[in-house]
Amino acid sequence: TPAQYSTVYNMFSFTIASMGASALFFFLSRNQLAPKYRPAMMVSGLVVSIACYHYFRIFESWEAAYELTGGQYVPTGAVFNDAYRYADWLLTVPLLMVELIAVLALPKGEGRGLLVRLSVAAFFMIALGYPGEIAKYEAGAQYWIFFVLSMIPFLYILFVLLTELTKSLERQPENVRGYISAARLIVLVSWCFYPIAYLASGVGGLSGAQAEVGLQVGYTIADIVAKAVFGVYIYFIAR
Amino acid sequence: TPAQYSTVYNMFSFTIASMGASALFFFLSRNQLAPKYRPAMMVSGLVVSIACYHYFRIFESWEAAYELTGGQYVPTGAVFNDAYRYADWLLTVPLLMVELIAVLALPKGEGRGLLVRLSVAAFFMIALGYPGEIAKYEAGAQYWIFFVLSMIPFLYILFVLLTELTKSLERQPENVRGYISAARLIVLVSWCFYPIAYLASGVGGLSGAQAEVGLQVGYTIADIVAKAVFGVYIYFIAR
Amino acid sequence: TPAQYSTVYNMFSFTIASMGASALFFFLSRNQLAPKYRPAMMVSGLVVSIACYHYFRIFESWEAAYELTGGQYVPTGAVFNDAYRYADWLLTVPLLMVELIAVLALPKGEGRGLLVRLSVAAFFMIALGYPGEIAKYEAGAQYWIFFVLSMIPFLYILFVLLTELTKSLERQPENVRGYISAARLIVLVSWCFYPIAYLASGVGGLSGAQAEVGLQVGYTIADIVAKAVFGVYIYFIAR
Amino acid sequence: TPAQYSTVYNMFSFTIASMGASALFFFLSRNQLAPKYRPAMMVSGLVVSIACYHYFRIFESWEAAYELTGGQYVPTGAVFNDAYRYADWLLTVPLLMVELIAVLALPKGEGRGLLVRLSVAAFFMIALGYPGEIAKYEAGAQYWIFFVLSMIPFLYILFVLLTELTKSLERQPENVRGYISAARLIVLVSWCFYPIAYLASGVGGLSGAQAEVGLQVGYTIADIVAKAVFGVYIYFIAR
Amino acid sequence: TPAQYSTVYNMFSFTIASMGASALFFFLSRNQLAPKYRPAMMVSGLVVSIACYHYFRIFESWEAAYELTGGQYVPTGAVFNDAYRYADWLLTVPLLMVELIAVLALPKGEGRGLLVRLSVAAFFMIALGYPGEIAKYEAGAQYWIFFVLSMIPFLYILFVLLTELTKSLERQPENVRGYISAARLIVLVSWCFYPIAYLASGVGGLSGAQAEVGLQVGYTIADIVAKAVFGVYIYFIAR
Amino acid sequence: TPAQYSTVYNMFSFTIASMGASALFFFLSRNQLAPKYRPAMMVSGLVVSIACYHYFRIFESWEAAYELTGGQYVPTGAVFNDAYRYADWLLTVPLLMVELIAVLALPKGEGRGLLVRLSVAAFFMIALGYPGEIAKYEAGAQYWIFFVLSMIPFLYILFVLLTELTKSLERQPENVRGYISAARLIVLVSWCFYPIAYLASGVGGLSGAQAEVGLQVGYTIADIVAKAVFGVYIYFIAR
Ligand SMILES: CC1=C(/C=C/C(C)=C/C=C/C(C)=C/C=O)C(C)(C)CCC1
Ligand SMILES: CC1=C(/C=C/C(C)=C/C=C/C(C)=C/C=O)C(C)(C)CCC1
Ligand SMILES: CC1=C(/C=C/C(C)=C/C=C/C(C)=C/C=O)C(C)(C)CCC1
Ligand SMILES: CC1=C(/C=C/C(C)=C/C=C/C(C)=C/C=O)C(C)(C)CCC1
Ligand SMILES: CC1=C(/C=C/C(C)=C/C=C/C(C)=C/C=O)C(C)(C)CCC1
Ligand SMILES: CC1=C(/C=C/C(C)=C/C=C/C(C)=C/C=O)C(C)(C)CCC1
Repeated sequence: TPAQYSTVYNMFSFTIASMGASALFFFLSRNQLAPKYRPAMMVSGLVVSIACYHYFRIFESWEAAYELTGGQYVPTGAVFNDAYRYADWLLTVPLLMVELIAVLALPKGEGRGLLVRLSVAAFFMIALGYPGEIAKYEAGAQYWIFFVLSMIPFLYILFVLLTELTKSLERQPENVRGYISAARLIVLVSWCFYPIAYLASGVGGLSGAQAEVGLQVGYTIADIVAKAVFGVYIYFIAR
Repeated sequence: TPAQYSTVYNMFSFTIASMGASALFFFLSRNQLAPKYRPAMMVSGLVVSIACYHYFRIFESWEAAYELTGGQYVPTGAVFNDAYRYADWLLTVPLLMVELIAVLALPKGEGRGLLVRLSVAAFFMIALGYPGEIAKYEAGAQYWIFFVLSMIPFLYILFVLLTELTKSLERQPENVRGYISAARLIVLVSWCFYPIAYLASGVGGLSGAQAEVGLQVGYTIADIVAKAVFGVYIYFIAR
Repeated sequence: TPAQYSTVYNMFSFTIASMGASALFFFLSRNQLAPKYRPAMMVSGLVVSIACYHYFRIFESWEAAYELTGGQYVPTGAVFNDAYRYADWLLTVPLLMVELIAVLALPKGEGRGLLVRLSVAAFFMIALGYPGEIAKYEAGAQYWIFFVLSMIPFLYILFVLLTELTKSLERQPENVRGYISAARLIVLVSWCFYPIAYLASGVGGLSGAQAEVGLQVGYTIADIVAKAVFGVYIYFIAR
Repeated sequence: TPAQYSTVYNMFSFTIASMGASALFFFLSRNQLAPKYRPAMMVSGLVVSIACYHYFRIFESWEAAYELTGGQYVPTGAVFNDAYRYADWLLTVPLLMVELIAVLALPKGEGRGLLVRLSVAAFFMIALGYPGEIAKYEAGAQYWIFFVLSMIPFLYILFVLLTELTKSLERQPENVRGYISAARLIVLVSWCFYPIAYLASGVGGLSGAQAEVGLQVGYTIADIVAKAVFGVYIYFIAR
Repeated sequence: TPAQYSTVYNMFSFTIASMGASALFFFLSRNQLAPKYRPAMMVSGLVVSIACYHYFRIFESWEAAYELTGGQYVPTGAVFNDAYRYADWLLTVPLLMVELIAVLALPKGEGRGLLVRLSVAAFFMIALGYPGEIAKYEAGAQYWIFFVLSMIPFLYILFVLLTELTKSLERQPENVRGYISAARLIVLVSWCFYPIAYLASGVGGLSGAQAEVGLQVGYTIADIVAKAVFGVYIYFIAR
Repeated sequence: TPAQYSTVYNMFSFTIASMGASALFFFLSRNQLAPKYRPAMMVSGLVVSIACYHYFRIFESWEAAYELTGGQYVPTGAVFNDAYRYADWLLTVPLLMVELIAVLALPKGEGRGLLVRLSVAAFFMIALGYPGEIAKYEAGAQYWIFFVLSMIPFLYILFVLLTELTKSLERQPENVRGYISAARLIVLVSWCFYPIAYLASGVGGLSGAQAEVGLQVGYTIADIVAKAVFGVYIYFIAR
């Protein structure tokens, strides 16, 4: 497990650097954009700042949770605090919805209904997923119940993104329409990864250490795509 | 109690991130708003900055107050300093009143009377509640007396918000009137939660640890709603 | 004394937060004011920044001076350094005079005489009070002599504020006159509190610990009123 | 090996200073350039900021990995974490492609295809090289397989730089054409150094310590050329 | 000596606060002044920033040099590093000359001769005084020789300030002439204090501890007058 | 050697303060200059920032290398890392060449040849000097060979400064010509000091400690002249 330990360790350090650099980028380039895209860019900057803070904490929690004894990393007793991830999502997932709506730059008031519905759903999706996550080691009733509960807002979001957003899209200028619909695709694809990882770690036949590493690496990559890559994509639309 | 310990621990970390990100947001987006709404946004930024500072202290106090011994968290002797919360409120509650008045953007001088009355009442409400809070473990005379004393300015605030504010509201432009009256509702609802939590922890039949956790979680959620969510709402009005 | 210890501890933390938030507020809102009021606001920002720095030091000195042994706080031998307070006043009290004059926004040169006289007097008032303060435990000759010496500039300031300032006030625009005279009142009332606290701690029949706590709490509240509240009041005049 | 130890130590410190100073330079001089060159300069600033962060971590990892015992530096057991380098490249190499394209300042949309292809290839080149690097001590199958896999995108990049970029170059104003083609040369030459160093450390007949030092020094110099020197060159084009 | 120890300790803390606040003030108010006075204000800001840094070091050196043992402060063996003071002067004294010349805002080139002569003399005055200062405990030949050597540039400066500056003064606008000549007076008076303190500590019949305390307090007060008060005075001229 | 130790210690602290204050000055006053001189000022700011960073490291290395034992400073085993100096020069010496050329403010492109030649030569001069410096204790072949190798670019620089620069100088406006030729003189004189110090420490008949101290003090003074004083001089030209 030294290799496993340092894979995760390096992923986290990498993510801190990515998120930090993205934050710098989004805040600095905000004023180069047309005013109507600035809120989207600022939200993007907030999202990656928040993630940078949380990955820093996750990184420290990981360092504290294992120590090198005789060439192997063994748990120190201090538990690796996975909840930072959910705390992060609880803040950033609704903000990502805001960002997606903001890039549409709808006339004031119009996108508000959409925005409220999507971000509230995103909020509940995460809040309901957490009680399931912490029960993953038993994979019992709690695990499944909250999975299902969390899937409801998740599917609702997918549904809205696929149907109602299409209508708003039609009112976009010709030249950005394609890009925005691609942005929606990034969201759809990257988000689907999360429930899969959730299931994989709880049900898949992997050993404990392997499942843990897989879960961390998976969530981390998905986070980078859904936050930093998505933000950069938005920047290119807005430019 | 490890689960209880880390629930509270994670709530606090979450709140630090929320307050910090809100502060960043409010200060950065201030200059994008119409000048008459900027003071409201700045006050909102101050409120969440102050709260961020205090939750950081609360977080550290919580970490210092318990330690992991044999799989259980036991008090270390250093007492968890709940007073940070009241110190926070003493500053932020009057500022929230200021914020609510400021978003009305009344002509200079007009809202001043309202503002003074509301923020002074808010100040006394908190100052009088504290001696009761620290007596919560005995739930004796002190507990009840200060509860009642603190309820007086509380009810006064509710009264003003419900009656006099209505008059000022009528002079608002048609399109924001609905929003501002909704903002008032957020205040009314979230604030009512505090005395309820106060009573619950002192009188409810809960065990000590459970009451403590419930109180912390409750106050924390209420704080996020009354400060960050409220600030975001104000931002949407002002946009 | 745990309750006493933490009352003072919490007061100090509260004051750090207040002063810090005020500093942020004064510096950030400076540019929203009419140019003639900006110097007043900047001075106000300096005053609370200096106080924030000193309360941070006072806070640390307090933490170092007592430790928890068997449920009681006992002195550690490291002495609580009250002199930070006088160092603070020595800088801030003259600045408060500057602020009061600055808000009058007199034509260049005119207020200069007033300003010099008031701030020099303020300086001597504090410098002469310190040798008395450190002799408070004996309440002997030194205590009384410096009290009287310090009262001279104090009474001089009161006198100037009451008589000569009145003349300058008359040349103010109608609409601010009332506010400025109220600002003067805040100064008069809050400042009178200091010599009273000085006397109370030295002469009053209180036990050592109680006198100490009373003095700290008293001075701290007075500081918040004379600096932060006063600054906010000035802001409202200037707006 | 004290001399070897401190050569590497000093190289790292030197690189931190270079990257930090470059970052300062690029961010500060950004606004002195014509707007169309600003994105290139900002990307350059990000690249060196990220590198500065990573070299700081590499520096600390190096310090922690060896200690002075009896005049010799011996490993402490904490392993020197070379992965920071790949984490750095994974972020900066695609950004360097972005920078090269950005300096062409092509009309919006035009360079996008080029940009996407080059930065994706750059990403895979690094990601595939890492599994080979960590197998360098055995120089077995894994080492060779990933080398070959990583060479594919590498050669693809070289190919694009040499052929397709030429076409875009032709549409540049006469006076910058020479400079940009020189910039491309810097990229070509400095990048070729990396696979060579990779091979040298794995296959060359050098002793372990010497190979390690050579690799570190080599990579470090190449990094400075490919990032800081390249950025400065871009600055001169843009001026 | 506890009282002596803390007198000096408090003086140093006070000076840090004064210098820091002055730096803040000078840098922030620079842009409110007429352009021709801005260089003077910036130099003033530099002077107090440098002094703030050095008093911070002096403060730490003082804390490290004595420790509380049995109610008395005894030297720890680490020597109190007085040289920070001379390092400070070496930088700030020439800058103060620059500031004085700059406030004259002479047409470009004109004041240059004056400036060079005065700041070079100031530089040598300090550089020659240091070898004498470190010999103060013996008060032997070295002490006297360097005193005399240092007096030469000192007297030269006094001479220039009194004669040649007068000529430049005459070309100043009527209304500032008085103020600038007063500024010159502040310089003259405060600077004369330094050689007196130098003599007093070496020759006066005081005990070691008393001489040390006197010297520190004296130099510190003189520094505040010559730097911060002088800077504030310049500000009032420039306003 | 306590006196020797603290002489060097104080020199380093002094240099940190000088470089830091210069950096502040150069960056802050940049925008007060005519645009064509701003690059020169920014480069100057970078040079002193880099030097400030390195002197900070040198200072810490010096503190770690000696400790006070029985009234004498003895080496701790941790070696004083002189290489920071060469790392510093490697960056700053080419930048100083850039600064000298930049102040000529030649039309775009014209000075580029000069600039490249001078800064490349400067780079090699330092890079070749280092292997000699670390061999100074033996003063053997390595010491002499690299001295000679390093002298070649050094003499080349002197030659260019004396001949070719003269031509460029002639195209300068009358009024700055004298100043720039003086700036060149500062460079010539201060730079000649370095090889002399190099020789003195290796060949001169001084004891080890004395040679070390002399070398440090010498290099430090030369650095201040060649960087900070030179930068200030450039500022006066540019004003
Ligand atoms: C449906 C579902 C989940 C979905 C999580 C998602 C969709 C997370 C998205 C996170 C993002 C986008 C983070 C970004 O930055 C959980 C909670 C794993 C639990 C089980 C069910
Ligand atoms: C009436 C009452 C209380 C009310 C507290 C309130 C209303 C607090 C509001 C806090 C807010 C809004 C914080 C925000 O950020 C106490 C003190 C619990 C004590 C008992 C009586
Ligand atoms: C007359 C007098 C005193 C007055 C102190 C005052 C008036 C202090 C004001 C402080 C302020 C306004 C601080 C603000 O921020 C002393 C020194 C206690 C000593 C005895 C006599
Ligand atoms: C082809 C190849 C490689 C190429 C690496 C390159 C080309 C790295 C470039 C890095 C840069 C430019 C960093 C800059 O800042 C590896 C990964 C060594 C592994 C083996 C094959
Ligand atoms: C003549 C003389 C001296 C003069 C010192 C002076 C004049 C110092 C001024 C310092 C200032 C103005 C500091 C400011 O900020 C010494 C060195 C004590 C030594 C003996 C002779
Ligand atoms: C010729 C020569 C040298 C020259 C060094 C020089 C010229 C250094 C200049 C440094 C500067 C200007 C630093 C500034 O900030 C060495 C390396 C000592 C080694 C021997 C030969």
